[in-house]
Amino acid sequence: MPMSDRRSIATVCLSGTLEDKLTAAAAAGFDGVEIFENDLIASPESPARLREHCADLGLSIDLYQPFRDFEAVPPDVLAANLRRAERKFDVMEQLGADTMLVCSTVSPDAVDDDDLAAEQLHLLASMAAERGIRIAYEALAWGRFVNTYDHSWRIVRRADHPALGVCLDSFHVLSRGSDPAGIRTIPASKLFFLQLADAPRLDMNVLQWSRHYRLFPGQGSFDLTGFVKAVLDAGYDGPLSLEVFNDVFRQADPRHAAVDAMRSLVSLRETVAATSIPAPPKLSGHSFAELSVSGPQVAQALSQLGLSHVAQHRSKPVQLWQQGTVRVLLNENAAPGESAISALAMESADPAASAERAEKLLAPRLPREHQADEADLTAVAAPDGTSVFLCRTDSWLADFTPTGEAERDTGLTAIDHVALTQPFDHFDGAALFYRSLLGLHPESAAEFAAPFGLVRSLPMADAGHSVRIALSVAVLRRGDWAPGVQDPQHIAFASDDALASAKAMRALGLPVLEIPANYYDDLEARLALPPGLLAELREYSVLYDRDANGEFLHFYTPLAGSRVFFEVVQRIGGYAGYGAANAPVRMAAHRRARLSSGS
Amino acid sequence: MPMSDRRSIATVCLSGTLEDKLTAAAAAGFDGVEIFENDLIASPESPARLREHCADLGLSIDLYQPFRDFEAVPPDVLAANLRRAERKFDVMEQLGADTMLVCSTVSPDAVDDDDLAAEQLHLLASMAAERGIRIAYEALAWGRFVNTYDHSWRIVRRADHPALGVCLDSFHVLSRGSDPAGIRTIPASKLFFLQLADAPRLDMNVLQWSRHYRLFPGQGSFDLTGFVKAVLDAGYDGPLSLEVFNDVFRQADPRHAAVDAMRSLVSLRETVAATSIPAPPKLSGHSFAELSVSGPQVAQALSQLGLSHVAQHRSKPVQLWQQGTVRVLLNENAAPGESAISALAMESADPAASAERAEKLLAPRLPREHQADEADLTAVAAPDGTSVFLCRTDSWLADFTPTGEAERDTGLTAIDHVALTQPFDHFDGAALFYRSLLGLHPESAAEFAAPFGLVRSLPMADAGHSVRIALSVAVLRRGDWAPGVQDPQHIAFASDDALASAKAMRALGLPVLEIPANYYDDLEARLALPPGLLAELREYSVLYDRDANGEFLHFYTPLAGSRVFFEVVQRIGGYAGYGAANAPVRMAAHRRARLSSGS
Repeated sequence: MPMSDRRSIATVCLSGTLEDKLTAAAAAGFDGVEIFENDLIASPESPARLREHCADLGLSIDLYQPFRDFEAVPPDVLAANLRRAERKFDVMEQLGADTMLVCSTVSPDAVDDDDLAAEQLHLLASMAAERGIRIAYEALAWGRFVNTYDHSWRIVRRADHPALGVCLDSFHVLSRGSDPAGIRTIPASKLFFLQLADAPRLDMNVLQWSRHYRLFPGQGSFDLTGFVKAVLDAGYDGPLSLEVFNDVFRQADPRHAAVDAMRSLVSLRETVAATSIPAPPKLSGHSFAELSVSGPQVAQALSQLGLSHVAQHRSKPVQLWQQGTVRVLLNENAAPGESAISALAMESADPAASAERAEKLLAPRLPREHQADEADLTAVAAPDGTSVFLCRTDSWLADFTPTGEAERDTGLTAIDHVALTQPFDHFDGAALFYRSLLGLHPESAAEFAAPFGLVRSLPMADAGHSVRIALSVAVLRRGDWAPGVQDPQHIAFASDDALASAKAMRALGLPVLEIPANYYDDLEARLALPPGLLAELREYSVLYDRDANGEFLHFYTPLAGSRVFFEVVQRIGGYAGYGAANAPVRMAAHRRARLSSGS
Repeated sequence: MPMSDRRSIATVCLSGTLEDKLTAAAAAGFDGVEIFENDLIASPESPARLREHCADLGLSIDLYQPFRDFEAVPPDVLAANLRRAERKFDVMEQLGADTMLVCSTVSPDAVDDDDLAAEQLHLLASMAAERGIRIAYEALAWGRFVNTYDHSWRIVRRADHPALGVCLDSFHVLSRGSDPAGIRTIPASKLFFLQLADAPRLDMNVLQWSRHYRLFPGQGSFDLTGFVKAVLDAGYDGPLSLEVFNDVFRQADPRHAAVDAMRSLVSLRETVAATSIPAPPKLSGHSFAELSVSGPQVAQALSQLGLSHVAQHRSKPVQLWQQGTVRVLLNENAAPGESAISALAMESADPAASAERAEKLLAPRLPREHQADEADLTAVAAPDGTSVFLCRTDSWLADFTPTGEAERDTGLTAIDHVALTQPFDHFDGAALFYRSLLGLHPESAAEFAAPFGLVRSLPMADAGHSVRIALSVAVLRRGDWAPGVQDPQHIAFASDDALASAKAMRALGLPVLEIPANYYDDLEARLALPPGLLAELREYSVLYDRDANGEFLHFYTPLAGSRVFFEVVQRIGGYAGYGAANAPVRMAAHRRARLSSGS
């Protein structure tokens, strides 16, 4: 299965003016672009100047798009449409673009007549051929008469002109539930262009779905791998080109979005065919999490959770807090009052391969200062700036000098998960970043009504569930009328007995986040838990959830510093969730705690 | 047709904790609330304490909701459901709430058996009656078996228990296209509760539509007036209660949202039955627009547009700029570099009635300083803080002293419209504010892809089209990666000959916002305009649009100060739009102008 190395992106994927978009696409390493007509129209650069501009940036112009509502119309409309096409051919000639996208018509002027459509497309292709231009005909999923790829292909076959072929768009094909297997019946010479977009499965008008919710490959639910394989099997050897209409990307920094886009293509190519990217090495748990702190608040919380300050970095103001294999680093480098999760470290079976994989996936490598005799760990930056390490614990532990402080036991066995609220623009990009770099798979996404706005969460884990990362984001905005927590982050520690841990931590003076009695009354009404268990949950402010596979007990600390809190969780049986149903109760409690502490 | 004076709101309409919501509802003048169960569960106040709290705030608890998935289930599930109900009755007893909402089931445990549903609801009602509680049964639009109000009524009738009635929700009824006329067949004694929500017409899954896009009455497309009339005709005399699930309101300041909600009810009551609110007086144009400015930039633009500084306020640093009946006030009270539209004034046939209407519609009255011999104009504050006057021009002109500066003529005839980009949280509230206060009707709403994110616009006008206000908002967010304009505002002046005005203004030195040649090439390709016209449009950077009724010529100035620019528009024939198709071109040009000016 041959696969072109060329990677393109439609300018409509990115925010900004055409100039902003081209700069971003080139910087992310794209080879070509589809010029979206509206971007050109708003640009002060002439088509000829744009051609030079793109050439300077190393970008070819692979497609001019879209040309709408052309075919199957009465003679007077046809004449106007051909005139319009000639003018656009003029533009394309100056641009040096040789392929024009023609979308199947949605015009009220058109008639349902495949022969007429074929005849008129033949005419258009003849005119195009004289200018050295090809016409790529695409079935819009909401086309008035032509809305499946096989129908567009029947018309192209009937029109029978060498300058006329089809454009396949994964969204239009997969949103309609068409089987891409049939693409193999289309001759390679007629596969003029391939546009790729993923999307979440949504039950809504397909045009609105397409215009607002497309995603880069790997961010949605479509089987892009199977789709691309079918197209490549059919002999397509043109560029893989992204065409994504997305409300978030439309306003996000195009420099970041273009990198996300390129990462999605690298990742897709890996699943479609063997590539030179090293496979994700096996993970075996969180090696550490690092917090950037200021003052003693976080250290006190860790102490009350039962971690001990067992070692000190030899050259940096970094403390190692530990209980068994639970390791948290505190770096006294935050601004006063601030706290944040600054780094995640996962235990990799092959750190060098992990590092190479990260590089191939465009993860920006972070410069790290270290002494000659200290471990040189590779760290990359997640979209929100969090440092990500893939390492062996034994390679960095030697950089720490024991303090002599004894370890304690409050039943913590591991870091169960790290929960990171993402800045709004970074959610889908961050999800793809962590999934592709670490080889994680997405778990049950949730969307819930929280006190200050809707929240979406997407947890992900490795195959062995040794590493779990839970991302969340405000679906729209987080009500900024309510002072308090913005983009909170937390570390959840695993316990085999959450109630025993809660008791041990109370003995250590831990102030657990207080959960209202009303919550337990509702739990009792809904689930009829054993009275003894319910009484203990209530007593220790432990929350409860269950799913088809098991039960979940968990409790939280108040916020320590500006953004960070901790959770202790117990998974019973095969419980696979994260207690999302309880998150709004937690959020309201955190607000109350913040208000009553006056901070 | 009797109508209860009682106005209630479901706590789910508002953002925040239950405490935040109750405070906001009471402050906006609501008489009662529906307690949404999740709000109670997250609250630290016991139900008994909440009862006192509500009583202190002057709020009754009119409904406890929702109780889900109760009816038509096997015996073991019924037993668990009855146990759950008893616990909730305990809560309601402490709350002092006498009506519980039971939604039609969506449970996989339920069966399609109306007799069984009726029998089990009878049982539930019997238990409720012993506690003095009523059950209001509601057909969810997505109920598994029961999803229309007539079906819920058939089951209630069959169950035949005095403590069982129906709850009608306008969304569930109107989203399914049910005819509310049939509501009159339900006896008044069985109409236990009425929930009101509006919504835009959306082609999507009805549950998602309901959970995310409901609006307050008057903000959407439903015929709430007809619906409420049908319910009142049937004899319902309970509260009019709002139940709105909306992603924006979920995160917006509940104190503002509650006022919007109350305004929507006041306005709805006006359309349902004659109320004591004065009808909106006839408007006859914009009396003035006032800009808050700093430095000479805006004055220079006005001068180049052909307005003259004809008068000066007698006691304030306010200049009157004028051309014919076009009047703009410049108030030198902005922070350095800032500019904003600070006030809109409309010519009212009866300013006193306008003021009284504004007061009844909860428009906050703004204190105004004036000398004893100066006009005392009533101003109210729009949701974004803009001052709104409804006045007679002759009543305030006398406060100005002529400067002696002569008027010029660049063909401006009126203020065509004032365009206000709204802060995100205020869009639907602002639309209702202006519409209800001024008696404007909405014109064609548009949503378009702008360079820095999607934009929604909603123009509105009075019956005579003498006053037009165009609101717009970022649908999601406005990309803040791109420095430049936030929430721009502009005043559009009408001309009978935009090209002649452009020529006259060029002679005055006006720097028109430059429109790219590519725009005109596309115009030529699409519309085959007469070459002479096209050449002039191109020469003067005048944009063009047409609709079924006429044509539109318009051009813009660069930004003057931080937020303000001007437009000159010519409506030919019955053109009813605002050139929204050209807005992205204007936005890209404004960004370029900003970047090149280095500000």
